[in-house]
Amino acid sequence: MKRIKAFAPATVANVSCGFDILGFALDSLGDTVELLATEAPGLRVKSITGDGGKLPLAADQNTCTIAIQAMLDAMGSQQGFDVHLQKGLPLGSGMGSSAASAVAALVAANELMGNPFEKKDLLPFAIEAERAACGAAHADNVAPSLLGGFVLIRDYHPLDVIKLSVPKGLCCTLLHPNYQLNTSDSRSVLRDRIPLKDAITQSGNVAGLIAGLFLADFGLISRSLKDVIAEPYRASLLPGFDRVKTAMMQHGALGLGISGSGPTLFVLSEGPENHSKFEQEAKRIYAELGLQVDVFFSTINTRGGYSIDSETE
Amino acid sequence: MKRIKAFAPATVANVSCGFDILGFALDSLGDTVELLATEAPGLRVKSITGDGGKLPLAADQNTCTIAIQAMLDAMGSQQGFDVHLQKGLPLGSGMGSSAASAVAALVAANELMGNPFEKKDLLPFAIEAERAACGAAHADNVAPSLLGGFVLIRDYHPLDVIKLSVPKGLCCTLLHPNYQLNTSDSRSVLRDRIPLKDAITQSGNVAGLIAGLFLADFGLISRSLKDVIAEPYRASLLPGFDRVKTAMMQHGALGLGISGSGPTLFVLSEGPENHSKFEQEAKRIYAELGLQVDVFFSTINTRGGYSIDSETE
Repeated sequence: MKRIKAFAPATVANVSCGFDILGFALDSLGDTVELLATEAPGLRVKSITGDGGKLPLAADQNTCTIAIQAMLDAMGSQQGFDVHLQKGLPLGSGMGSSAASAVAALVAANELMGNPFEKKDLLPFAIEAERAACGAAHADNVAPSLLGGFVLIRDYHPLDVIKLSVPKGLCCTLLHPNYQLNTSDSRSVLRDRIPLKDAITQSGNVAGLIAGLFLADFGLISRSLKDVIAEPYRASLLPGFDRVKTAMMQHGALGLGISGSGPTLFVLSEGPENHSKFEQEAKRIYAELGLQVDVFFSTINTRGGYSIDSETE
Repeated sequence: MKRIKAFAPATVANVSCGFDILGFALDSLGDTVELLATEAPGLRVKSITGDGGKLPLAADQNTCTIAIQAMLDAMGSQQGFDVHLQKGLPLGSGMGSSAASAVAALVAANELMGNPFEKKDLLPFAIEAERAACGAAHADNVAPSLLGGFVLIRDYHPLDVIKLSVPKGLCCTLLHPNYQLNTSDSRSVLRDRIPLKDAITQSGNVAGLIAGLFLADFGLISRSLKDVIAEPYRASLLPGFDRVKTAMMQHGALGLGISGSGPTLFVLSEGPENHSKFEQEAKRIYAELGLQVDVFFSTINTRGGYSIDSETE
């Protein structure tokens, strides 16, 4: 029998001006998958904790097993696995929950099988799981969860994923208010066509953000963290967005944006010093709106998913 | 009497996916301005060579003197100058001709007055000259001509100009076919509104180009040098564009795009090795279309405009 545990981090996709092309990974939040290689073929989800009973155990519906199956299919392998999933982040929150599960499962399965794949080559299998979970083959959560750091998805045909530089001291505070948001609503408020001048503004900002990351220029990062394409429309779906954003910026945030398609908001900062102010202010503002908010603090994860411990005989 | 000469380089603005936000400077082409500080106040263009008699000598119409006047106004100075301009690049070709003249004049005037301005702080005066010459206060030629290298103009309000990294070995071949193109035609073919998916594609490519420059990843630079916003519409105004582009890519170009609003095309390459093939093929294709083409080769200028020699007493 062979057994292994792997962790994969929560992720923030979109990243303001990086709408649909950028994501980054967090250190302190993520999912853990324990895998047991079995003599019998087939994939079985044996247990899930931390999901409030919401996730499917069926192997053709769970992102862990869908991802592993895609990997086994690519190898032509019949290897069997028992899967135990510990959810460490909230579902449907915009923190890349399904992506973290799929990546943790893939990292564990790859290691248990003797690493037949380079880490980056696991990405297409994780994207398959995203397609099953979200209906769209997005890579902006799975790529940073797998590779760590800030990741650019330049293109999908063929897939072109670039790991960017992360300035030392860059920190993230996540604000997860306790209401549900329908991802399809988030999509439907976007415009199919946009003014050329907005596209140029967005290009300038994303170019500034990328340059700011490489130059470790926090001022430039802050000036560039502006989204004129999605945020102006999506903000109206998010109670308190403008108030919270104004407050975070007044308390020293580099920028605030919608994590994925929300409802979680991410706040980037230089260093951890202002985190408690962010937390205090966010709790105060959401409380006035009758909402609770979970607040998480994290540095940027730069290693991506990784195996924790293993036991082989 | 004080006298000084300064050189400012030709520039490529737009840079494919960097439409309206990026430009870079060339080493081997540019304008030279000789300035004489005079006791009498006032600015006088005393001579212009290399323009075929096309440029205005009137001080309120020449970009050299307009730029210097903007600088003197900012200082509250009445200093007088005689200006001699040697054009080293063709007018109206899309190589930043008016920008090079203005920048060379400013670098010379600043130095003759004892450098009251940091180099980057000359930029607003050069932009004033562009506004007078082109009707629009663009910075994507003057900024790289002044600062050198690849320059991002992230924003104009306020002006936010970022000097990017330039990978060693990056080279440029310029193809200047001998026909005139009206800049207003180039503008008018663009769409006011564009599909959201095109804006995202352009964002991904410009992000890839910026990352490629910092990572010195020529493959990534090449994959990213795609413009889905301007080139598809402007190419139809440029005889032979598709044929020339296909040929250059087949002969090892990293990418080819429209320099500024054309008609000059720029070809980026890793190293100078393929330059003679680019030249040969471009001459052959344009000849078949009944056009002549001037071909220039250059490394990337990373220092911007600079003073050459001076004489003071």
